[in-house]
Amino acid sequence: MKKNIIAPRTLSGFMELLPQEQAVFNKIKSVLEGVYSSFGFFPLDTPVLEYSEILLAKAGGETEKQLYRFSKGDTDLTMRFDLTVPLAKYVAKNAGNLSFPFKRYQIGKVYRGERTQRGRFREFYQSDIDIIGDGQLSIINDAEIPAIIYNIFTKLGINDFTVRINNRKVLNGFYDMLGFGEQSQDIMRIVDKIDKIGQENVIEELGKIGVETEKANRLIEFIRIDGSCAEVVSKLKQLGDNEIYLQGVSELEQVTSLISSFGVPEKFFKIDLSIARGLDYYTGTVYETTLTAHPEIGSVCSGGRYDNLAEYYTERKLPGVGMSIGLTRLFYILNEKNYINKNDFGSPCDAMIIPMANDENYSQTLAYAVKIGAYLRENGISTQIYYENKKFKGKISYADKLSIPNVVFIGEDEIKNGVITVKNLKTHEQQTLAQDKAVEFIVSNKKQSGSLVIMGEEDA
Amino acid sequence: MKKNIIAPRTLSGFMELLPQEQAVFNKIKSVLEGVYSSFGFFPLDTPVLEYSEILLAKAGGETEKQLYRFSKGDTDLTMRFDLTVPLAKYVAKNAGNLSFPFKRYQIGKVYRGERTQRGRFREFYQSDIDIIGDGQLSIINDAEIPAIIYNIFTKLGINDFTVRINNRKVLNGFYDMLGFGEQSQDIMRIVDKIDKIGQENVIEELGKIGVETEKANRLIEFIRIDGSCAEVVSKLKQLGDNEIYLQGVSELEQVTSLISSFGVPEKFFKIDLSIARGLDYYTGTVYETTLTAHPEIGSVCSGGRYDNLAEYYTERKLPGVGMSIGLTRLFYILNEKNYINKNDFGSPCDAMIIPMANDENYSQTLAYAVKIGAYLRENGISTQIYYENKKFKGKISYADKLSIPNVVFIGEDEIKNGVITVKNLKTHEQQTLAQDKAVEFIVSNKKQSGSLVIMGEEDA
Repeated sequence: MKKNIIAPRTLSGFMELLPQEQAVFNKIKSVLEGVYSSFGFFPLDTPVLEYSEILLAKAGGETEKQLYRFSKGDTDLTMRFDLTVPLAKYVAKNAGNLSFPFKRYQIGKVYRGERTQRGRFREFYQSDIDIIGDGQLSIINDAEIPAIIYNIFTKLGINDFTVRINNRKVLNGFYDMLGFGEQSQDIMRIVDKIDKIGQENVIEELGKIGVETEKANRLIEFIRIDGSCAEVVSKLKQLGDNEIYLQGVSELEQVTSLISSFGVPEKFFKIDLSIARGLDYYTGTVYETTLTAHPEIGSVCSGGRYDNLAEYYTERKLPGVGMSIGLTRLFYILNEKNYINKNDFGSPCDAMIIPMANDENYSQTLAYAVKIGAYLRENGISTQIYYENKKFKGKISYADKLSIPNVVFIGEDEIKNGVITVKNLKTHEQQTLAQDKAVEFIVSNKKQSGSLVIMGEEDA
Repeated sequence: MKKNIIAPRTLSGFMELLPQEQAVFNKIKSVLEGVYSSFGFFPLDTPVLEYSEILLAKAGGETEKQLYRFSKGDTDLTMRFDLTVPLAKYVAKNAGNLSFPFKRYQIGKVYRGERTQRGRFREFYQSDIDIIGDGQLSIINDAEIPAIIYNIFTKLGINDFTVRINNRKVLNGFYDMLGFGEQSQDIMRIVDKIDKIGQENVIEELGKIGVETEKANRLIEFIRIDGSCAEVVSKLKQLGDNEIYLQGVSELEQVTSLISSFGVPEKFFKIDLSIARGLDYYTGTVYETTLTAHPEIGSVCSGGRYDNLAEYYTERKLPGVGMSIGLTRLFYILNEKNYINKNDFGSPCDAMIIPMANDENYSQTLAYAVKIGAYLRENGISTQIYYENKKFKGKISYADKLSIPNVVFIGEDEIKNGVITVKNLKTHEQQTLAQDKAVEFIVSNKKQSGSLVIMGEEDA
C-alpha cells in the first residue's frame, strides 16, 4: 500500500536549526545559564500556555493582535508572549513561599504572531533575569545587572559592546522642570526614537503634540550630554533641583560607580540620556546594550527597574530590576554576520572511535572500542563510536563533516599493546598513546578552540 | 485609581515548581543532557507549534481528542504531542544536510489535553534520544541505548532499576508459529497489558478475539520464560525455526551480550518477553525500564527499534532506534516518594556574602564584598551577595531558607587582613581564611552532598 507523502515543512518564523548550528546555540545558552547561576539566580520554568485572562491583564493594542490565543473546551488559552507577565503571576501566586529578594532567571520560548520577515521570529527564546524585592529593593541590584551582562558577553567572546544606562527619574524630573507634566510619557516615547528617526523628526513630532521648538532643543541638548559617567553626573547635578530629578541623578551616580566595583571596565558602559525604554512600567534605572560596531541592530539586551511587578495580581508591592536578552535574535545576528567561531563548536563530541577490524576480529575489537569509549567519557571526553559497516574513507568523512576534532583508531595492535591511536583531524597530528596520555592529548586540543563568538576588529 | 486584581492561577495539569524544586529538576535535566552529549548526540530543538497536517499525518483516535489544535489566520496549527513526529519531519526535511547515522537528543515540552488527575500532566517534558540510519543501522546501536539509560540512572543516584528488553521479531515469529498471522498486532496489544490486568483477563480477552485457551496458555508460558539473558536466549533457540523468530532471537542475543561490553552489570537489565510496546512502529528491539521497588509506576523510560522513521514525509528509508524518558513524570514520582536528596541541591548558589558594616563603612565593605564575589565565581563557586538592609538574623535566615550551604562574612577585620570568614550553615564550622583556602573549604563541603536522588533500601 503506497502512502501519501506529506511535504515536511516548518512554520515560517519558527527557527529550526541544523544540528551543528543548534549545538552552538545550546553552548551560548549554557554560557547564559552558567553566568546567571554563578550569581545565585534560581532557574524558573513556567508553562507556555496560560489563562488568557492572566496574560492579558495588562496587554493591549499591538500585542493582542499578535497573540496565539484559542479555546479548548471552556478555557480561553494564550501562549505566553513574554516571560515577564508569567513571572508576575508566579510571584503573586507563590509570594508566601518565596524568600525575597527573589532572584530568578528564565530562558524560554515566547510567541508573537508578527508579520514574518527576515530575522524576525514568531517563536523565539527570551532569556530573562529579575531580582524582586518585597516592598523594597536596594539600588545595588541595579549595578549587578550590567555586571552580569558584562560577564555573559565577554564569556561568549563578544568584546565590543556598550551597556547604555539611564534613569527614568532623571528624565521625568527634567521634563517636570521643563513644565511638561502629564505629557512626559508621550514625549519620552518620541525622544526614545531619536536613533531611529533622527533629531529633526523628533522635533517635528514633539511640535505636533505642542512642545515648543525652544524646549525641544533644550531637551535634545540634554539627552546629548556626553562624557565619562563621572562627567555626565557632574553636569547633570548642575542642571536643576527638582526632587525627583536629583534622586534620579543620585541613583545614576551610585549605580555607575558601583558597576566599576563589580570589575566592569568603563569602556563597556556609559550613561546615555537618550534611552528611555518604551514601556511604562520602568521607574528608575534603564538599560540597553548595543554591539558597538552594529548600532543598526539596536539593543540586544535591555531592561530596568520597576516599582511594581505584579500589580494586576496582588496588592503586595513588589519592586524589581531585570533584563532580557532576545536569544534567538542574538544568535541569528551573530550567525548572519559570521561571528560564530566554527572551530569545532558545532561538533557533537570530542572524539570518534573507529573500530578497525575484519569480520573475524570484529566482536573483540568492538568490545575494546566500547571499553575505551566508556573510559574517555569518564574522563570528560564526549565520545561516539562508529558502528556502521562503511569504507574507512566514509568513516573519516563522517567525522570531518561533523567537525569532530579527534578520531581514535582501534585495531589489533592497539588491543595487544593496550594503547589507542588518536588523530587530530585539524592538525593531522597522530599519536599512539596510553589511555591517560590520549585523554591529555584530546584535552589539550580542546583548549585551543577559542571562544564561541569571534568578532573581528572591524568598525561600523 | 484602584485596579482590578485578577487571581493569579496556573492551568491545571501544567507543572509549575517552586524555585528549589525547579533547581533540582534542572539538575536532573543537566545530568540527562550531559550523558547524551558524552555519547555524541546532537542537541535538537524543534518548534512547539507545527502545521496540523504534519503532526497528524499518522495520529488518530485518542491522540486527536487530546490535541491543542487551533487556527491562526488561515493556518491550522497544533502543539506537538511528542518529539518523535517532529523528529520525523525534521529528518525528512533536512536529510540532505544531515550525516547518518544521525544521533540527536531533544528535551522539550509536549502537550496532551488528557483528563487531569494527580500525577498526570498536560504539559510535560519528554527527553528523547534517537539514532537514525540512512537505509540501514547496525544492531550495535540497540545495545548502546540501555548503556545510556544505565549511565543516566546511576549518575542520578537511581540504583534500583531494570531495563527490560525484548524483540518484536521474536514475538512476531512466535505468533507466526502459533498460526496467529494477521491477528498478531491485536494479540500483542492484549498480552502487553498482562502486568496491568493479570493473566486471567489476558486469556479472557484473547478468547474474545478467537484465540483458543491452549494457545493462550502456550503464549503465556512463553512470555514467562525467565533466567539470565544467556539462559533465556538458549531456551528461545530451542523453541522454533521460523526465520523471523530466529532472526529476532539472534538480535536479542547480540544486543544483550553487547550491553555487558558497555559496562552495564547484568543485574540492571534482563530479557522480558512480556513487553511489546503498544506502538505499531517498533519492529525489533524494544525496551522498558522499571524502578524495581515500584512496579506500580510502570515504565519510566521506553523505546525501541523501528524500520522507518519518516514514512509519512519521505520515500527514503530511515531506520532508527531510540528511547524516551517522561521527565516531568519521573521528577514528580521521585519527589512524591521523597527520593530527592534535599541536601542543598535546591540551593541557588554555593555561597552568600554578607557585607558587615555600619553606614559609614558601607561602601568600602560593599566594594570588597563585590570583589570577593567575583573571585569566588571565577573559581567556580556560585555566589550571591546580600545587599538588602535587614537585621543580621534576617540575612542568615534568608540563606537558611534557600539552603545556601555557606555564608561569607566581610567586615572591617576581613578587609584589613585581606581574608574572608566562611561559615558552613550545616556543620556550623566557621573559619577565617585566605581567599584561595576559602575556595577549597567551600568546594570540599560541596563534595559531601551526595547524589541527586537517594533511594532507600526498601523493597516493594
